[in-house]
This record gives sequence, structure tokens and C-alpha cells, in this order.
Amino acid sequence: MSLIVQKFGGTSVGNTDKIKAVAERVLKCKQQGHQMVIVLSAMSGVTDQLTGYAKAVQKVPDLREMDMLLSTGEQVTIALFAMAVKQAGHDAISLLGDQVRITTDIMHTKARIKNIDTELIRKHLNAGKIVTIAGFQGVTEEGDITTLGRGGSDTTAVALAAALKADACEIFTDVDGVYTTDPNICKSARKIDRISYDEMLELASLGAKVLDIRSVSFAKRYKVPLHVRSTFTETEGTWVVEEDKIMESMLVSGVTYNKNEARITIKNVPDQPGVAAKIFLPISDAGIVVDMIIQNTTTGDLTDMTFTVMKNDYDRALLLLDKIVKDIGAESVSGSEDIAKISIVGVGMRNHSGIASTMFHILSKEGINIMMISTSEIKVSCIIEEKYTELAVRALHDAFALGKENLPVEEQDPVPAQY
Amino acid sequence: MSLIVQKFGGTSVGNTDKIKAVAERVLKCKQQGHQMVIVLSAMSGVTDQLTGYAKAVQKVPDLREMDMLLSTGEQVTIALFAMAVKQAGHDAISLLGDQVRITTDIMHTKARIKNIDTELIRKHLNAGKIVTIAGFQGVTEEGDITTLGRGGSDTTAVALAAALKADACEIFTDVDGVYTTDPNICKSARKIDRISYDEMLELASLGAKVLDIRSVSFAKRYKVPLHVRSTFTETEGTWVVEEDKIMESMLVSGVTYNKNEARITIKNVPDQPGVAAKIFLPISDAGIVVDMIIQNTTTGDLTDMTFTVMKNDYDRALLLLDKIVKDIGAESVSGSEDIAKISIVGVGMRNHSGIASTMFHILSKEGINIMMISTSEIKVSCIIEEKYTELAVRALHDAFALGKENLPVEEQDPVPAQY
Repeated sequence: MSLIVQKFGGTSVGNTDKIKAVAERVLKCKQQGHQMVIVLSAMSGVTDQLTGYAKAVQKVPDLREMDMLLSTGEQVTIALFAMAVKQAGHDAISLLGDQVRITTDIMHTKARIKNIDTELIRKHLNAGKIVTIAGFQGVTEEGDITTLGRGGSDTTAVALAAALKADACEIFTDVDGVYTTDPNICKSARKIDRISYDEMLELASLGAKVLDIRSVSFAKRYKVPLHVRSTFTETEGTWVVEEDKIMESMLVSGVTYNKNEARITIKNVPDQPGVAAKIFLPISDAGIVVDMIIQNTTTGDLTDMTFTVMKNDYDRALLLLDKIVKDIGAESVSGSEDIAKISIVGVGMRNHSGIASTMFHILSKEGINIMMISTSEIKVSCIIEEKYTELAVRALHDAFALGKENLPVEEQDPVPAQY
Repeated sequence: MSLIVQKFGGTSVGNTDKIKAVAERVLKCKQQGHQMVIVLSAMSGVTDQLTGYAKAVQKVPDLREMDMLLSTGEQVTIALFAMAVKQAGHDAISLLGDQVRITTDIMHTKARIKNIDTELIRKHLNAGKIVTIAGFQGVTEEGDITTLGRGGSDTTAVALAAALKADACEIFTDVDGVYTTDPNICKSARKIDRISYDEMLELASLGAKVLDIRSVSFAKRYKVPLHVRSTFTETEGTWVVEEDKIMESMLVSGVTYNKNEARITIKNVPDQPGVAAKIFLPISDAGIVVDMIIQNTTTGDLTDMTFTVMKNDYDRALLLLDKIVKDIGAESVSGSEDIAKISIVGVGMRNHSGIASTMFHILSKEGINIMMISTSEIKVSCIIEEKYTELAVRALHDAFALGKENLPVEEQDPVPAQY
């Protein structure tokens, strides 16, 4: 008997018919003899509706009250889900973050989980019930309701799986797994069967939307085998697991892109100690996140500084920099929104040299100029002109042969926690 | 400085604009220097919508899960209300039944309040906040959410007022008070300024819909001065308070009617010990509430038994009785849905004889036949043909001079807790 945590997102429980379908799917799994903990999001559209109400009564909604408001969405879904399971003939019980004692810090609307008490869940599981738990929400030690921010229900599911030492945590969504690249722009994109936590973290932070980065990092820390799969099919999705030898033998696992960044360049910055802080402190104080930063080699006592910010922070950043440029005595600030970040990710890079240069070579062969480069142990990212995005993705995907299964199936380790 | 509990119903907080209007009204009262506790219902329509969802997933919705589901309605309103107060420039905090520790028994969907912990409320009141509390909900000692059934938010408000020893509990609704009778059928109906708990209890149980009977009974037990008034005007409504001399000097306080009952007669019941139990036990086991019961004087060893049930239980009751009549050897069962119950209520009846006979005389003068009579210390009810309802109400209202102020204003006691 395994203990499995399953999480279904808002589109999977978007109306009462879908909730009934999810109940039946869960029941099938339960009838195979597993203990089931089901984490649900709010019905799709509900969170937006509630946010609309909030903005109608308070210009900048109070964060504590926002959590009080938004947490109702998941409460509705779990109650209806428990009813649907009971209608299908099995016992079930719904529990709130507060009832489970999913304690968090007090950072309303983006709280972090500190502890989960598993006693009540275990009691109901041992009584044979399907236990459904509201995603996205927790409670402070003082008893105030908190929410976990974007992707919070994924985090709830992974944290519960870790606390319960579950055999697997399955994230059901509207896609059937993690792909080697975006299937919409590259026909040969292939679903990845197994990927390491680190690769998934890079993919998530580089633009792949399928999993929330916090939940992957949680899964990595507590070694929770994560299974991303589709609500609407029975096929296996992608397992996110600990790195193994087979993964290491693959040079690149995926190609990803992100069109949401903009590039800013400050020309002729006086190359003095402390000048970088003078530029970036006011920017971070304004809540603007800077991604890549590149400082060109100094010519004389002047240097150029180039970095990227999110597109929706671009105008605000330029405005701030106009003043900063004068203060530090630099020449000018300029930038472009027509850029894209193309990245290749793979744990194999650690032991293989030449991956980065292969990437540069392929891009240059296609006549694509590289504006900025950033690397980590397991990824290489290049900033290029936005119009070349699709061409670059396809060229890299082909060059690293990602459309083909890298190994025959019989050589692969069995999927973990194969229940 | 007074402590005032105010309750606003679903139509008063039906959308975000109305919630803002309520916030401003409450703020005006707060600015007079009072401590304010605001109990809110769900936005009108929400409870019906949620109930619809529940029925779509489970034929007979599980009661625990129903409470989990329905309690979200009030949670949304209090969060939005707290935001609206903050937008208007004052500090506020919303609290759930669970957070306040409004503990109830475990009778889901119709739980009774056992205890209220006032510590957290007092803490926030002393910090100068307007405290808004979800109506209709509580929590069991085991931590399960419960709801209090129809009119539950009124009960929450009165129970909080009792626990906090509030100076007044104001119930804001869409009518401006308790009337001597239904203004829709009697033009001379007059708003009652003050009425005793007992009279209000009779009026509520006899068909007046303005206050939930449980909340009145709670108010009576804990001597909470209740003020029923309109959300949409500034005028004083009706105070429901302890009986006083002035009230006793009035013969009748109000005339009420109820068209929701049906009459059933069993002919020639063998007049033996235990026969009434044989009739009424199966009926109450079926969840059918019997209101008036009359057993005519026995002729020989047979008797007729007449009683009333709610109209929507009528068919089910007849079906049950077909079998019972055979079992007990009675002659036949018959009935009518075309009846109405007309009642006069007043604490003055205790000390004045002849009120009942005046009522009978007036009805007969109008040619109205009385089918059944039932009396208590402070009320007389008659079952008549339904078509005479309006005529009877107007005739009684006139005869007892309810359209006129019974006493000049200067002779009345000051309104209690005049804040």
C-alpha cells in the first residue's frame, strides 16, 4: 500500500462536472489499495472574481483580508470534492490549512510553510477515508489565514507529501508532462519521462510554466518524487526525481525560452568601487528584479554595464536610471524590449565540456547574434533578438537530438515509487 | 462609550457597493465613540449558488461538507467589509467563527452555540478596531466548521452581544421594524417602537419573518436589548426589550397571520389510551412538525382529532395517515389546504379578560367561521378559511385600535441603552 498525494489545478476542477470526474479518477486509484491525499485549487475563475471584488472595495487591498477572502476558493472546491467522492460511494473528508495545521510565517499573500502536523490526516487515512486538503492556504501561529502565492497549491501538495513521507506526489494539470521544448514551436518536442530536480528548477526559472519553482525546490530538499501529468488522459507524465547516471549521460535535457525580459545598457560607467551598488540598490529597492548582469571588460577607466529586467518593469527601471546615470557620471542609458532568452539545460553539462560552444556555433550558423551570455553548472542562456526565438529553439533542439529517445527503454531505471 | 453589535443581512451586503455603504454607516456610528462588532451574512444569492453546486455533486449533500461549503459565503463578506472600512480610513479586522471560538454542538447545518470566547474580540476592540465577525458559523470542539441554520446570522449577533455584555444588538434588515400587522394588507399598520421578548417570540413563531425566533429567545434569556431597523434609512426601528408596565397596559400588540399550514381531520378515532401516540409518533418520526392539535369532546367511545401541519408536509402526512387510520380503526382522514391562522399577541392579555371573546366576536361580525382555536398566556390563534385572511387581519387591527399610538410619547420610558 502506497501513500499518494495528488494535486488538481483550477482548470481540472473548473465546474461541478469536472469535480465529479476528478472524484472518479481518484477513486479508481484508491481502489488499487492506496492511501490518497488530494490537494485542490480553487475552481478556475474564482480567484480572479474575488480579487475583482477586493479591488472594488479597497484600492490596495489589505493583505491579511486578501488571504481571508482568497482562501474561500479552495474551501469551496474541497467541500464539493468530498461530496462527489461520497456520492460515488466512498468515504471522504475535507480539511482546511488551518485544520491540518499547515503553519506558515506571517507574510500574507506569499507565506512560506514552516510546519505541517500530520496527525489528523493520518487518523482519517487510517480510517480509510480519502482526505482532501485545501491547497494554497495555511495558518499563522496566531491563527490568521495565509496564502502561499502563485503556484501555492503545488507547494501545498509537495509539502504534504514531504511531511507524510508519501511515495509520490502527482501534479495533475492541463498538459501531459514536461517537454524537451515548447511543442507549439517545435514539432519534434518530446515529453521527458524523467528529469532531475536541478534541471526542472532551471527549466522552471527559465520560462517553463508547468511547475512552480518553489514546489520543485521543496521536492528536491525532501526527495519527494514528483509526477507531472494530465488530468485528461491516463498516460504517464514526467517524473521529477533525484539525478541518476542515465541523466548524466545526456548532454542536454531541454531547450527553453523567455520573451518576458528587456535589456538595459548603461554606457561609460566610471569604473570605481561601489558603482554597481549605486546602480542596483535603488532598482532592487523599487522591487524590480534584475536577472542577468554583464559588465564588459574595462577600457581605460570606463565600463559598460548591461542587464535584463522583466518587461513590465522596463519603463520604471529606465525612469529610475535616468537619475542614477547623472549621479554616477555615466554617459547614457539605453535598452531594448525586442529580446529573448534562449537556454539549454542538462545535468550532463557538468561532465561534458564544449556544450556551450556547440550552442554558440549553432546559433551563429543560423545567423543569430548573441547579445549576452550567462551560464551555470547545468545551463547556458543566451540573449538574442526576439524575432529569432523560434528558429533558435528548433535549431538547438535538433542539434542536441532532443527529439529522439536518448536511451532504449530497457536501459532505464524503473520509475521510482512505481505503484 | 457603548459596545454595540450590529448585524447586516444578505440584501444589505449584496454587492461591493452595498458593502461600502454599510462600512460608511458603521464608521459614522464608530465615530460617535462606540466599540463596534459587525456580524455579516453572505452576499444575497451566494448561499443558493453554493447549495446548487452541492446538489449537483451529491444528491443528498453530506452535512459536514455542506457546512464547510456554506461557511465560505460569510467569510467573503467579512473580508470585503474589513477592506472597505480600511479604505474609508479606519482600522478593522475580520474574524471567523473558528477564530473567535464560537463553539457549537456537532449538529451540522443547524448547530447550537455552546460558548463564545470573547478574549480575541476584546483585544481587537481595545486596539480601536472595528471587528467584523462571520455570521451563521461556528466550530465544534473537534475543530469542524458548523453552521447555525436559517436566520443563523441573527443568532450569531445576539449571542455575541450576550457574551460581550453589549449595550445593544442592532439587526439591520430590509424593513424598518416590527409592525402591528402586515402593512401590505392593512394600511393602518403601525411600526411598533417597543415590544417585549415574549410578544416578539409569539409573533416570530406565528408568521412574522422579521426576526429569527432563536435569536429572540437568546436575547430574552440574556436580556440583550434588540433593535430591528432598516439598512436603508436612519430612523429608529423597533426595540425588543424586557416587558414593562406600559406594554402591560396595552391589550394587543400585534395581529399576525400564516397561510403556510394545512388542516387534517381524523374522524371517529376510538377513544383509548395511547391512540394519540399511535397517530403522532409516526408523523414526528417522518420529520413532520405538527402545530395545533385539537381533540373534540368525546361522543360515546369515538372522538375526532384535528391538527395542522406545514403545507409542504401535507401530502406526505396524508399518505402516512391512510395507513395509521386503518391500524387504529378510525373512520377516515380528510383535510384542507385552504386555511389560514390568524393570531393576536400581547402581554396585556395576562391581566385582561375578554380579549379572546372580543376576537371571536369581531370575526363572527364579519361572517368568518372559526375552525380551530389555540391560546397561550399572551396570544390567541384561530384557524379560518384562507380567503378571509386579509379581512380578518384588518378587522382585528381596527378593533384593537392598533393603528393609533397607544400612549403619548412623553409617558414612555426612555429607550434602553440610548447610545
